[in-house]
Amino acid sequence: MAKKQTRKQLIFEEAAKLFRDKGYLATSVRELADKVGLEPSSLYSHIKSKEEILQKICFDSAQKFIDGINEIEKLNATPSEKLKALIALHITIATEDSTSVTVFNDEWRHLSQDVLKEFLVLRRDYESRFKNIIKKGIELGEFKNINPSIALYTILTSVRWLHYWYKPGRQLSPTDIEKDICTLLIKGLKE
Amino acid sequence: MAKKQTRKQLIFEEAAKLFRDKGYLATSVRELADKVGLEPSSLYSHIKSKEEILQKICFDSAQKFIDGINEIEKLNATPSEKLKALIALHITIATEDSTSVTVFNDEWRHLSQDVLKEFLVLRRDYESRFKNIIKKGIELGEFKNINPSIALYTILTSVRWLHYWYKPGRQLSPTDIEKDICTLLIKGLKE
Repeated sequence: MAKKQTRKQLIFEEAAKLFRDKGYLATSVRELADKVGLEPSSLYSHIKSKEEILQKICFDSAQKFIDGINEIEKLNATPSEKLKALIALHITIATEDSTSVTVFNDEWRHLSQDVLKEFLVLRRDYESRFKNIIKKGIELGEFKNINPSIALYTILTSVRWLHYWYKPGRQLSPTDIEKDICTLLIKGLKE
Repeated sequence: MAKKQTRKQLIFEEAAKLFRDKGYLATSVRELADKVGLEPSSLYSHIKSKEEILQKICFDSAQKFIDGINEIEKLNATPSEKLKALIALHITIATEDSTSVTVFNDEWRHLSQDVLKEFLVLRRDYESRFKNIIKKGIELGEFKNINPSIALYTILTSVRWLHYWYKPGRQLSPTDIEKDICTLLIKGLKE
């Protein structure tokens, strides 16, 4: 049983890399089987389908964001502190497992219709909780009075390069990156 | 001749929409032919290949950014003003032709190898010119001393949601959006 789980793990890891490098649609089951040294027919004793893997990657990543915001909402902290914690959450997830986050960000569109609906419900719920923190900050006069949707999407999108760029060998640590991005988004680039 | 150009235009427009909605790889020439009311074989009297269309979309969009930065560099203006003009350029391009920009942003990876190389040279050149404006601002003490690459990628990426979100019917005009995004990135969200 332990051996079988390890093989399954390997299949998921190699699939994530292929999806990241070639895209989900362009990755064939034969290619994945080659990568892990199995015949395509044997691969199906470990996984149900190519989509099962995409689903797992997308929902596992989504869960990390949900777990994160669950904790952040509970903090006894100001909206600025919560926003900082949210930005840090995105940076941590993007730098800890950049392969999965790339697939999560770029390939979720290829989930089949019912699963996609479920995925979009999770995403909308996360975005609305993120936006509530921004709204609260505006309400309290802690944030500038800008359109909360514009602030939400600008901030959410602004960290969507790290998973391509960050490699553990970089001179900058995730903490350095977090400091600069928080400064830019919260205090602005201008002195 | 005029009629043939119009048909070609229509083919490019419908292709851009298909690439945006389904992705380049998942779009077949047959489907495109159906959309414009031609047999696949007749389609090839108007276009050389599916990739010709992708190339045109990617390089035409790239050219808009290059034309924009050419003008901005020539301005007799401070780095803050130039940065504002660059952010405005990205917003204008994303809202004026969101279909092409979506394809440009999401599908460039599928250009064939030689063309991809050429595309990446243009992109790196654009990024380095954008970064020089940020560096100049830091040098002059106008911008905070944050890592110029982090600032570059955070700002460049932060507007990459507009082409999905913006529709001409939205209550917010491109000018409203520009004002809020510039405030957020240049002055920061915090009061």
